[in-house]
Amino acid sequence: MLYLLDGLDWGTAPFRALVARALELEAGAAPRRAPGKRLGAVFLNPSLRTRTSIEAAAGMLGIQPIVLQPGTDTWALELAEGAVMDGLTVEHVKDAVAVLSGFVDALAVRAFAGLVDPEEDRAEPVLQAFVDYSTVPVINLESARWHPLQGLADAATITRRLGPDPKGEPLVLTWAPHPKALPAAVPNQVLLTAAALGMQITLAHPEGFDLDPQVVARAGAIAADEGGGLTVSHDRACLREARVVVAKSWGGWSGYGRRDDEARRRAELSSWRVEERDLAPDAGLMHCLPVRRNVVATDAALDGPNSWVIETAHRRMWTAAAVLEQMLAEEM
Amino acid sequence: MLYLLDGLDWGTAPFRALVARALELEAGAAPRRAPGKRLGAVFLNPSLRTRTSIEAAAGMLGIQPIVLQPGTDTWALELAEGAVMDGLTVEHVKDAVAVLSGFVDALAVRAFAGLVDPEEDRAEPVLQAFVDYSTVPVINLESARWHPLQGLADAATITRRLGPDPKGEPLVLTWAPHPKALPAAVPNQVLLTAAALGMQITLAHPEGFDLDPQVVARAGAIAADEGGGLTVSHDRACLREARVVVAKSWGGWSGYGRRDDEARRRAELSSWRVEERDLAPDAGLMHCLPVRRNVVATDAALDGPNSWVIETAHRRMWTAAAVLEQMLAEEM
Amino acid sequence: MLYLLDGLDWGTAPFRALVARALELEAGAAPRRAPGKRLGAVFLNPSLRTRTSIEAAAGMLGIQPIVLQPGTDTWALELAEGAVMDGLTVEHVKDAVAVLSGFVDALAVRAFAGLVDPEEDRAEPVLQAFVDYSTVPVINLESARWHPLQGLADAATITRRLGPDPKGEPLVLTWAPHPKALPAAVPNQVLLTAAALGMQITLAHPEGFDLDPQVVARAGAIAADEGGGLTVSHDRACLREARVVVAKSWGGWSGYGRRDDEARRRAELSSWRVEERDLAPDAGLMHCLPVRRNVVATDAALDGPNSWVIETAHRRMWTAAAVLEQMLAEEM
Repeated sequence: MLYLLDGLDWGTAPFRALVARALELEAGAAPRRAPGKRLGAVFLNPSLRTRTSIEAAAGMLGIQPIVLQPGTDTWALELAEGAVMDGLTVEHVKDAVAVLSGFVDALAVRAFAGLVDPEEDRAEPVLQAFVDYSTVPVINLESARWHPLQGLADAATITRRLGPDPKGEPLVLTWAPHPKALPAAVPNQVLLTAAALGMQITLAHPEGFDLDPQVVARAGAIAADEGGGLTVSHDRACLREARVVVAKSWGGWSGYGRRDDEARRRAELSSWRVEERDLAPDAGLMHCLPVRRNVVATDAALDGPNSWVIETAHRRMWTAAAVLEQMLAEEM
Repeated sequence: MLYLLDGLDWGTAPFRALVARALELEAGAAPRRAPGKRLGAVFLNPSLRTRTSIEAAAGMLGIQPIVLQPGTDTWALELAEGAVMDGLTVEHVKDAVAVLSGFVDALAVRAFAGLVDPEEDRAEPVLQAFVDYSTVPVINLESARWHPLQGLADAATITRRLGPDPKGEPLVLTWAPHPKALPAAVPNQVLLTAAALGMQITLAHPEGFDLDPQVVARAGAIAADEGGGLTVSHDRACLREARVVVAKSWGGWSGYGRRDDEARRRAELSSWRVEERDLAPDAGLMHCLPVRRNVVATDAALDGPNSWVIETAHRRMWTAAAVLEQMLAEEM
Repeated sequence: MLYLLDGLDWGTAPFRALVARALELEAGAAPRRAPGKRLGAVFLNPSLRTRTSIEAAAGMLGIQPIVLQPGTDTWALELAEGAVMDGLTVEHVKDAVAVLSGFVDALAVRAFAGLVDPEEDRAEPVLQAFVDYSTVPVINLESARWHPLQGLADAATITRRLGPDPKGEPLVLTWAPHPKALPAAVPNQVLLTAAALGMQITLAHPEGFDLDPQVVARAGAIAADEGGGLTVSHDRACLREARVVVAKSWGGWSGYGRRDDEARRRAELSSWRVEERDLAPDAGLMHCLPVRRNVVATDAALDGPNSWVIETAHRRMWTAAAVLEQMLAEEM
């Protein structure tokens, strides 16, 4: 069975092939349709781009999207195996998933990190329950650790802008200010995406705002395999050297269990906001959106000629279509 | 005009015919489609299975499902005839239904029991308003007293497992523990369903946790007509004698107005939890879901070889499709 | 690019042509379909008629509707240009609109008046942001000042009832009691609609419950151009002279900044409730719904032979279909 959990589920070459296919669809190629198929999309967290783009991509392929929001539309879900459910949750995720997978041809799910227990976030309890109990393909719409549909769109823009083989091109993923500790799914995914493209990655962040060392090590190994590399820097001067700057805020991996300390440090870190002058003339600025304007990055940077932000968001539809094609139209 | 309010709206033979048709669809028969038709589905309470299965069934038949959640998506509804609406409600159900029925070819509605006033629950004010003010067929997606789409799925599993004529086979509907008083729509429907199949029904519950005597009398009469019968027992030893055990919790009919007393009694009744050893080797265990695991029934019972729970949930789509076919494709 | 912001975006003759087309569709004309097109409908406020009718109309034309509710389904939106977004909003409307317009072929949006700052309500910050940042046509699903889809349905009923040219026929728009100060989008739209039909309009309200003088002046000028006129009256005896009575409550334009005074005055104004005896024998009563029964108008008036309320609501689907046809099928 097929999964899309971190985008590299099938390896780096299939990842790049999906990106290429998305760009073909964007350029006007006819999608392979899957009429009569149904996609169940379960959102445990809010969504604008992901929800709209997956609904649109499904419609484009003749697939019926069915969107559910547990806790709003449906019951709150229990995650713990063996739980005695005499509290607030009224349905176990294992039952919900087993049932839903009988109604649809693929399931997609969004479930953000809890940011309380690092090992629980690594274990991805919701996403893993979907994998364990679904009898149909599962698509990750952003989990505790990964956001593969965003990664595919990022890769589509990078290859569209830098050419089909951006191997060795310098990309900086920079931490950015934000009033709250945010999950690391997007920055993790950026590392994986740039690694799969063989880029020369610099992960730039203030001390203490590190990413999960397991993720950094994995991305570094993939980057090296693909002809690139990964280094970490606490000096944001590196931004000026990049062809691609990806801005994003996140709560530090070291910050689990001491978010109060982290919150105090944030106040001193507003200089990490991305501005136009941080970008080389030929550099592109990327951000997954939603972005807190003039906190994460300035209006001038986000709206200036170096911004690749909106075009990347638009590619969310084409990459979603490429994924649904592969998962649901292939079998026909 | 057609209604599906308690499943037996057209009699027991048409009920069984719908069940048979659902099993044909599940086995691969082509559905009679109704393209261009629209179904409005109004949820005043949360839903996972019902919402997803009716959306999926509609899509399968080319029907456009339009899902509304008053109070979230739309206005809170007034139910009282003649009300001077100077309080919280901003739209009368009569207007909402009259308007919606001009936009769609059938309306479906979920509105649970209030569990405060037994006569109000018997009167089904929301469902009845849909019947009174709709100009298109009305489908009950679970009301204060009935859940016909669940009943059809239960009947589909019973006939699939026991053969097309389960007349006289012993079925026990057993009360089960739960932290809260729940509406009786599902257990009422189980009685009606088993009665329509002519089964030998035992309704097992602790004293005080009775069902509406009108419902029990009606089911008993139908069961007798169909070659079965209905008895009430306060001894759960009867579970071991059943071919089918249906587990479900509910607030007692006698408990209206004194739910506090009832809540105290619940604490002593955890032994009514269904366990594997309660089931005969050839018995099937059913539950409508969502189920509070290890409270209503143990993981071992729900996940063991005797469980018919998930397969029944999956049949919710096929029975919904059979209903929509009959209501919307017949006329073409 | 095409917009539908106040219904008269293309002038009065195209407005009347849209109304005529809606009546043709209602009478059975085949809609011009736009298969493969997508409509994004964003609701910042609740909706029953508008949401259902636009979804139904889209389905009728083969258009995929994608419905979003920011704050529930998605992020809370920032409206202020140049805002430093370190507070509650996590996405700027400019980004949301720019992204969404890449996924769909038209955007529709509902955003009610804030009723705090009259100049802000006149500026329509949300609707204007959609106009400014969308790259696809924008449809107003009720903004601070206008509700064009309601206006089209009102006009459809008036021309259906009074003949295709209701020029000079007397229409009264009457203020009605209500426990709360409501936005003026609907009464504003009634003035514009009746003006576009060249009717003889009387705007009747208690002193202090005036509408925006800019709107009244604009409607008066259009009415004069089209062979009608507009007068204001504080005497509700004028209702008896009308062929069409439109009842609606609103917060007074003069009431901005002193809603407490206004609230006290409401208590004395219950005699403005519309009753059967207020209507001439051949008059029609209209209300956009939802209506607080027996507060705004009596059950007898709303349900009596003079009521055109439900038939107008049903025309919301046909007028929406005519709009979508014009916006999305024309180009094919």
